[in-house]
Amino acid sequence: MKNFVIKKRCSDYEPLDLLKLRKSLQKSGASRSLCDEVVSEISPKIKDRSTSNELFKLARKTLAKKSQVLAANYHIVRGIYELGPTGYPFEKLCAEMLKKKGFHTRVGVILKGEHVKHEVDVIAERSDARLLCECKFHNKNTGKSNVKVPLYIHSRFLDILGHHGKSAYNSYAIFSNTTFSKDAITYAEGVGIKLFSMNYPRKNTFVDHIIRYKIYPITCLKTLKRRDIQFLLDKGVVVIKQLKEKIDLLQEREIKPNEIIAIQREINLLLKA
Amino acid sequence: MKNFVIKKRCSDYEPLDLLKLRKSLQKSGASRSLCDEVVSEISPKIKDRSTSNELFKLARKTLAKKSQVLAANYHIVRGIYELGPTGYPFEKLCAEMLKKKGFHTRVGVILKGEHVKHEVDVIAERSDARLLCECKFHNKNTGKSNVKVPLYIHSRFLDILGHHGKSAYNSYAIFSNTTFSKDAITYAEGVGIKLFSMNYPRKNTFVDHIIRYKIYPITCLKTLKRRDIQFLLDKGVVVIKQLKEKIDLLQEREIKPNEIIAIQREINLLLKA
Repeated sequence: MKNFVIKKRCSDYEPLDLLKLRKSLQKSGASRSLCDEVVSEISPKIKDRSTSNELFKLARKTLAKKSQVLAANYHIVRGIYELGPTGYPFEKLCAEMLKKKGFHTRVGVILKGEHVKHEVDVIAERSDARLLCECKFHNKNTGKSNVKVPLYIHSRFLDILGHHGKSAYNSYAIFSNTTFSKDAITYAEGVGIKLFSMNYPRKNTFVDHIIRYKIYPITCLKTLKRRDIQFLLDKGVVVIKQLKEKIDLLQEREIKPNEIIAIQREINLLLKA
Repeated sequence: MKNFVIKKRCSDYEPLDLLKLRKSLQKSGASRSLCDEVVSEISPKIKDRSTSNELFKLARKTLAKKSQVLAANYHIVRGIYELGPTGYPFEKLCAEMLKKKGFHTRVGVILKGEHVKHEVDVIAERSDARLLCECKFHNKNTGKSNVKVPLYIHSRFLDILGHHGKSAYNSYAIFSNTTFSKDAITYAEGVGIKLFSMNYPRKNTFVDHIIRYKIYPITCLKTLKRRDIQFLLDKGVVVIKQLKEKIDLLQEREIKPNEIIAIQREINLLLKA
């Protein structure tokens, strides 16, 4: 296995790195010993020139046998990509997270500024804070958000406050399903823009938030078929809690009763975890 | 000819519109009667399902027989696209224009801001003004600059002034080889950012500036071959005045003496126009 290579998304090859695989598994919350167990179980099954996607699926399947919750956690980053190609479901995911934090939310609102109108992805209001949010959804994990994003958001914030008054909103937040560049983080911290992404805040990332508040995207469900996901997204169902409340949509889709039971069981397991 | 269609860049077809063709010719500065003359001369030569590029070349060739200067003017917008694929030659073109306005210029300068460092495409200094410039080069004419561009530039300006002091620079200018959206123009006017593009200022566009100051890109030369253009761009030669001063580069390239004479003649004609 020493000389095995793995084909990455970008079509390049890289040497198989079992340590890297173990680290990625650990992020799901699995213990060191469980990660070791999974790695040793799958390593004989890895083929030379496998794609990173095949490797991921193998690891996820093996982890799911140990714990469905950990398998869902392991799938979160990819699950969010699978909400694409449009950014709208990601906006709804961010809004659901803000709801869990006690905010009342509105998605896709046009607000007047001093000079021009702005489309604000999510407005979140709570008794102690009024937040404006920008949701940057990238289809590929090469789409790092650079410093231009917090730069234009800062001007947008100033323009909106210029019309609505300085105390109308407390701050702007930017959510991203990828990472922010170092400059983007430094600038945002400097001007008081809040960031939530896959690499920031370091000890409380977007994934940590999803796990804590159980805002799993429906794409994390092992029991839900790919072809049914788009149907649900089109109906505005993005997170598993929404699916639990609208489970009859699956009957409408003519999914077999025993499959529906399996989906419900997985949802309940994740929500109670 | 009534039902002829033209294949656009984006692979769509549109009906042949001779009025539109005449209008585009008029922008070169040609008189109405000359435009009519060109249109009636080329219309029997147009074939059904020609590409817009073929139509453009036919019109340019016919116009060139009447006036090489008007033909060069007609070619300016396309000539700038041909400076691509990188945006660096466009930055040099903008710098050359600013030089003609009496500015001392520096291209690609890193400036400290209050929070982060910024790369400024061109810094232009004159006794009465210190300008920062952003040069937005698009490879396709679908790349309209939207409001996010002046928004991030405004924050960048504030961040730079935050470090260098409020009186360090008078304003920011954005140059674009395409157009600005309505919102981009409204916002830029509101916060005092200067714009120079293909649709703004309406009576003094980027093309008007090029004609007035004779800052023709070398890609506008009819006598210069496509394969020699990249060689010259790599040597930092972007506008015809630079080529006039470095004409020996063409000898180095082993271009035939009679071709070099033709190139020199075309350059002199344009510079004296």
